[in-house]
Amino acid sequence: MKPLSVHTVIVYSGGMDSTVLLYDILDRGIRAEALSFDYGSRHNHRELSMAKNICENLKVPHHIVPLDFFKGFFKSALLSSGDPIPEGPYNESTMKQTVVPFRNGILMSIAAGYAESVGASEIVLASHGGDHAIYPDCRPDFNRAFSQAVYFGTDGKVSVRFPYEGLDKRNIGDIGRKLGVDYAKTWTCYKGGLHHCGVCSACNERRYALRFEEKMDPTTYLDSAKPR
Amino acid sequence: MKPLSVHTVIVYSGGMDSTVLLYDILDRGIRAEALSFDYGSRHNHRELSMAKNICENLKVPHHIVPLDFFKGFFKSALLSSGDPIPEGPYNESTMKQTVVPFRNGILMSIAAGYAESVGASEIVLASHGGDHAIYPDCRPDFNRAFSQAVYFGTDGKVSVRFPYEGLDKRNIGDIGRKLGVDYAKTWTCYKGGLHHCGVCSACNERRYALRFEEKMDPTTYLDSAKPR
Repeated sequence: MKPLSVHTVIVYSGGMDSTVLLYDILDRGIRAEALSFDYGSRHNHRELSMAKNICENLKVPHHIVPLDFFKGFFKSALLSSGDPIPEGPYNESTMKQTVVPFRNGILMSIAAGYAESVGASEIVLASHGGDHAIYPDCRPDFNRAFSQAVYFGTDGKVSVRFPYEGLDKRNIGDIGRKLGVDYAKTWTCYKGGLHHCGVCSACNERRYALRFEEKMDPTTYLDSAKPR
Repeated sequence: MKPLSVHTVIVYSGGMDSTVLLYDILDRGIRAEALSFDYGSRHNHRELSMAKNICENLKVPHHIVPLDFFKGFFKSALLSSGDPIPEGPYNESTMKQTVVPFRNGILMSIAAGYAESVGASEIVLASHGGDHAIYPDCRPDFNRAFSQAVYFGTDGKVSVRFPYEGLDKRNIGDIGRKLGVDYAKTWTCYKGGLHHCGVCSACNERRYALRFEEKMDPTTYLDSAKPR
C-alpha cells in the first residue's frame, strides 16, 4: 500500500525546536515545505541564515515571509526597536519582556493561508511545554481553539498540529540528537551576535535542553561560566 | 455611574460594512481605533483612501498595516497579481475566485496582537451572513473558534466580536442610513476604478444592500442597467 502523501507547511525559525521538528517530519516520510518569518527581531538575521542553510542541506523548499509591519506596530524586547534583552534564567519576569503579542497566532494564520494556497493539508509548529508559563499563544487551550479556527476557516482543507506540545525543551533536544541534528548549526540566542551569548533567557534554556552540564552541548557560548 | 471605558480596534476596510460598524460603535460611546490592511488587492487603493478620509472626519486614529507578502504568496482574483475580477451576481462560482485564503484569520490575528500591544480590550470585524456561503472565515463556527483562540492567546486580555454576524448586507445598509453614513464616500467595487463598475459581484451586492431599485443608493455606477 502506498503511504498517504501528506504535504506539510512547517513554521520554521531555524531555532533548535523547529529544526528538530523538521528532521522529525522528514524522518516520517512527510513532504515538508518551510516558512520562515522576518519580523525584525534582533536574532532574526542569525536564525534566518541558519534556516536557509539547513533547508538547502535537507532539500526542503524554504520561503521567507517579510513582516515589516512588526517593528512599527508592536513593542517587545525581542524586536530591535524595543528594550535591551533581559539576562538570567528563564523565569516569568525576564521572559515577559520578550513576548510579541499573539505572535504564534499571526505566524500560523499566514502559514494556514499559504498552506491552503499551495494545497498543503496541514501546518505544524514546534511550540512546547517549556513555553507555556509565559507565552499564552503556546498553551494547549490556545492550540485547540486555533486549530479549530483554521479547520473551519479553510473549509476543512488545512489542519494544525503541535507535535511537541506535551514535551519540554530537553525532550526535544534528545529527539534531535537521535535524528542527527547538528545543533551547532541552529540558533537560539535572543541577542543575535556572532556567537550565542550564553546568558540570556533563551541561551539558558538552550543549555538546559542540550545538556550543557553533561558536556553534550556543541554550542560556542561567549559566556558559559554562569550556572543555570 | 461612569460608563465602562471600552477601547476597541476595528478591522476597517473603508467598505460599507465596516464603515457602518465604525459609526455604530462610536454611536455607542466606544473608543475606537481603526486598522486597515494594504494587501495589494485591486480595489485596495480606493478603499484605503476612503478609509483614511472617513477616519479623519470622525477623528478616529487610523493605521494602515502594509502586508506586502500577500502578492507573492497568495493567489486570488482579488489581488492585482491574480486573474480578472469575475462579473455577474454573487453566486458561488464567481465568488470562489475572490477568496483570499484565511484572510480574516490573518487580518484579525494582526489586529489582536496590535490590540494587546496598545492595551485595547477587544477587536471587532463587520463580517456578515451574506458572506457565509463562500468565505469560510466569515462563518459562525470560524468566528467562535477564532474568538476563543484570541482570548486564550492573549491571556484573556483581548476579546473578539462580530456584531453583524447574524445580519445580511441590506440590514447593515439600513443601520448605516439611520446612523447618517454617507455611502457615496464608501468603496465596494472589486475592480477599483474611478467609479463603481456596477456589474462585479461586489457591486451587485452593494446595489442590493443600498436598495438601488428603490432609488435609495447614492453610488455612481458606470453600468447600472443590468438587473441583479
